[in-house]
Amino acid sequence: MLEMVPPHARRRPVGTGSAASFLALLALAVQLSAGPALAQGTQLADWSDADLATAGALRDRALKGTSAYEHVSSLVTEVGPRLAGSPGDEAAVRWAMNRLGKLGFTGVRTQDVLVPRWIRGTTEVTLLGPAAQPLVAATLGGSIGTGEEGIEAQVVEVASLEALTAMQAGDIRNKVVFINQRMERTKDGASYGTTVKNRTQGASAAGNLGAVALVIRSVGTSDERFAHTGRMTYDVSAPRIPAFSLSNPDADTLSRQLKTNKQLRLRLKSTAREMPPAWSANVIGEIPGTDRAGEIVLLGAHLDSWDLGQGALDDGAGVAIVVEAARLISRLDRKPSRTIRVVLFANEEFGLSGAKEYARLIGDEQAKHVLAMEADTGIGPVIRLESQVAPEFLGAIEKMRAAMQPLPIEGGSNNASGGADLGPLRSLGVPVLDPVLDASLYFDVHHTMNDTLAKVDAKVLDQTVAAYAVAAYLAATKQGDFGRLAPVPFNR
Amino acid sequence: MLEMVPPHARRRPVGTGSAASFLALLALAVQLSAGPALAQGTQLADWSDADLATAGALRDRALKGTSAYEHVSSLVTEVGPRLAGSPGDEAAVRWAMNRLGKLGFTGVRTQDVLVPRWIRGTTEVTLLGPAAQPLVAATLGGSIGTGEEGIEAQVVEVASLEALTAMQAGDIRNKVVFINQRMERTKDGASYGTTVKNRTQGASAAGNLGAVALVIRSVGTSDERFAHTGRMTYDVSAPRIPAFSLSNPDADTLSRQLKTNKQLRLRLKSTAREMPPAWSANVIGEIPGTDRAGEIVLLGAHLDSWDLGQGALDDGAGVAIVVEAARLISRLDRKPSRTIRVVLFANEEFGLSGAKEYARLIGDEQAKHVLAMEADTGIGPVIRLESQVAPEFLGAIEKMRAAMQPLPIEGGSNNASGGADLGPLRSLGVPVLDPVLDASLYFDVHHTMNDTLAKVDAKVLDQTVAAYAVAAYLAATKQGDFGRLAPVPFNR
Repeated sequence: MLEMVPPHARRRPVGTGSAASFLALLALAVQLSAGPALAQGTQLADWSDADLATAGALRDRALKGTSAYEHVSSLVTEVGPRLAGSPGDEAAVRWAMNRLGKLGFTGVRTQDVLVPRWIRGTTEVTLLGPAAQPLVAATLGGSIGTGEEGIEAQVVEVASLEALTAMQAGDIRNKVVFINQRMERTKDGASYGTTVKNRTQGASAAGNLGAVALVIRSVGTSDERFAHTGRMTYDVSAPRIPAFSLSNPDADTLSRQLKTNKQLRLRLKSTAREMPPAWSANVIGEIPGTDRAGEIVLLGAHLDSWDLGQGALDDGAGVAIVVEAARLISRLDRKPSRTIRVVLFANEEFGLSGAKEYARLIGDEQAKHVLAMEADTGIGPVIRLESQVAPEFLGAIEKMRAAMQPLPIEGGSNNASGGADLGPLRSLGVPVLDPVLDASLYFDVHHTMNDTLAKVDAKVLDQTVAAYAVAAYLAATKQGDFGRLAPVPFNR
Repeated sequence: MLEMVPPHARRRPVGTGSAASFLALLALAVQLSAGPALAQGTQLADWSDADLATAGALRDRALKGTSAYEHVSSLVTEVGPRLAGSPGDEAAVRWAMNRLGKLGFTGVRTQDVLVPRWIRGTTEVTLLGPAAQPLVAATLGGSIGTGEEGIEAQVVEVASLEALTAMQAGDIRNKVVFINQRMERTKDGASYGTTVKNRTQGASAAGNLGAVALVIRSVGTSDERFAHTGRMTYDVSAPRIPAFSLSNPDADTLSRQLKTNKQLRLRLKSTAREMPPAWSANVIGEIPGTDRAGEIVLLGAHLDSWDLGQGALDDGAGVAIVVEAARLISRLDRKPSRTIRVVLFANEEFGLSGAKEYARLIGDEQAKHVLAMEADTGIGPVIRLESQVAPEFLGAIEKMRAAMQPLPIEGGSNNASGGADLGPLRSLGVPVLDPVLDASLYFDVHHTMNDTLAKVDAKVLDQTVAAYAVAAYLAATKQGDFGRLAPVPFNR
């Protein structure tokens, strides 16, 4: 069924009245046995004055100080790193069940998810010469190891993945390819997209040309000496070679040495290995709605983290933001009519296992997901409100943004992705709201050992909670919905 | 002879006319067969107008841009870490000989120095619990290892070395002592003195009370996740136990866990070990003086570094500052009458071996050392000019400071130590000038893996070079000297 949607229709939002979503709408109408009419456009008021006043009070309450910092502190202190399938991941699931239970969430439950289990082992990258220099490096997530004997070879520097792809096999056969492209600091983290492909696709591009290993400059913005890990993948047809990242200062050192010594050699060793898949779980908890409890506003974040750091920003902060936004709403006198569902996804980092499983099991309930939001770019603050909803509901999005004032949040586009874990839901047609967080500092610590609680500013986190709480409350009280998106195949 | 100086006279500067230094002065007068009278007070002009004008031109030349950054870049790129007695240390000696030679220094030579050889090996500190958390830690320099089996024990937190010393043995017998005292950020690094004793004396204080290991919060100011190493020592009478430091974020994590779990256990493992002493060398090069070439203005820095980082700030920057200051002076048309001697000391970090050896071999030449300066607190800029000279020469120090204008350098005390490597010389009576460097950021990276070229700001380094060059040139052209200090025993 999904494959029948023509490519040009992909990701194009459609209103509830559009032809493309007629079948989905029909199904929805059948499922919703009670409640007001959904397809009402913008003529009727989206919210009562009381709803808007409550949202304002909620915002002010959050800005006075929330428990979000305490949530993330508890997660990183009591659990710490929680790579998919690891003992830390298991401890994180227990932590989340306990935490949601204690905070008064209802329907607290797990959804079992099978996750890949990759073990980093040890990493050694050494610059050879009269006095060998150890470099600060990380084996990229999913990389094969080097074997006990390691790899020793000459290094060839290239400027980018594109430059590598344009090279001849003869230039790099039996050598180590070093992709030396720096990620620039930007407020919205847009430069991540430019450089992350070095990490994800570099090994196969180099392997195809006969290289024995890949080394990239970390996809990160800081000059502190931390290597950034992150997932890489192998093309099925390419020779598999081990892949590493260097911290920015170490990439500088390597590049400086190469300027005067073209014969420079590196020694690489990694004991990384793949284990059989392991069980993890999505953890779910709800703030039940009143008269439209069957309709869902989803708040998502991911519970897993990379193994090197504490996962305080990625994604302890996101967990804290969505849990605290929902908790604050649960304390209101004026309850929302829809249910707010917090989903703490398993294994975002290593392939979105939890998000895919959630969507796989969703069944008829998918049509009841009125709006989904995710928090997965650190602590914030929210700088822009983007969305992907049916165009006739953009007025409502603008009213939601107005309700967040005086927070300085600008309006944004209506072609937001909503975040990685919302991909499978969005492909089913679920509209998304995407509060864009200030990521100026996020990529300093992203996927590094340095992702710790020391980087979490409680006041900034409170601002982000305020925006999420307002948005979730208004989505859960809105008269009518946000339409549906055109379903598209999900292929990530 | 040194032992005969009464304690109350220690470190008290004395003028060339004072009774205490009469013998030294007599020796000096005999040695100096030619040249103007030395003991002339401040009645005569210290410098000619031409000297002062040259100093000003030198300052302006340095502020326009120097080669200091290039020196430190070369050292950390081509050599890297250079712990005393290591292959890197050996490479650094070769590097320095080459560099001074190429830059046109004369009398480039080494002075062999026997240095202790300590090997860090591997360090593992793990916080035990449902999901074990690895902590970022460093074995302290000079610590014994734990043996292959490691140590696992309960942790007891104490606030300071003083608090530890006041405890009863029963409270910490068979436990790991955790000294959790934070070094505060200050401009002159004064807080280093408050906390460094946890590192140097903590293990023996804990060992005396029956502890099995010591863990300290790093003596450092940053919230980046780096552990600070540095030298520790054992009292001869105390049981020797292994000693570690934790990064600030990891000390935070440990302390937070201890708040709710008093039974918390750590697992510690270190393969640190002591090897037989090894040979290293002081590297010396000179810019020869004209009519008073036998008199020496000494510029010192240390060539060794800790093993974890690149030693860019500690003390690559210092090496670059003194080498470049001397090089700039060598390019002047108006040469200084005294010789400027650059001494790149061996093994400052692990016991001042090079500085002690230099002083041990100095013989009669000690009286010809007119003034000594050291650079060993990073890149700068210079914020204050301190000294330890005979009081009647403070007017000359003030004139030297005036010649550094418009650099915003304030006047300072006359009880400066001058720096660790100048200790042995100062104890012989050599006056010191101490340009105090802004150390606000220095202790963020001091003794960590993060001490890299990325922390070196070329413009700031140029300012520091300007101040050192002016001071060295004026010291080497001054009519008369700076008196002598009362000799005291050197016991560090």
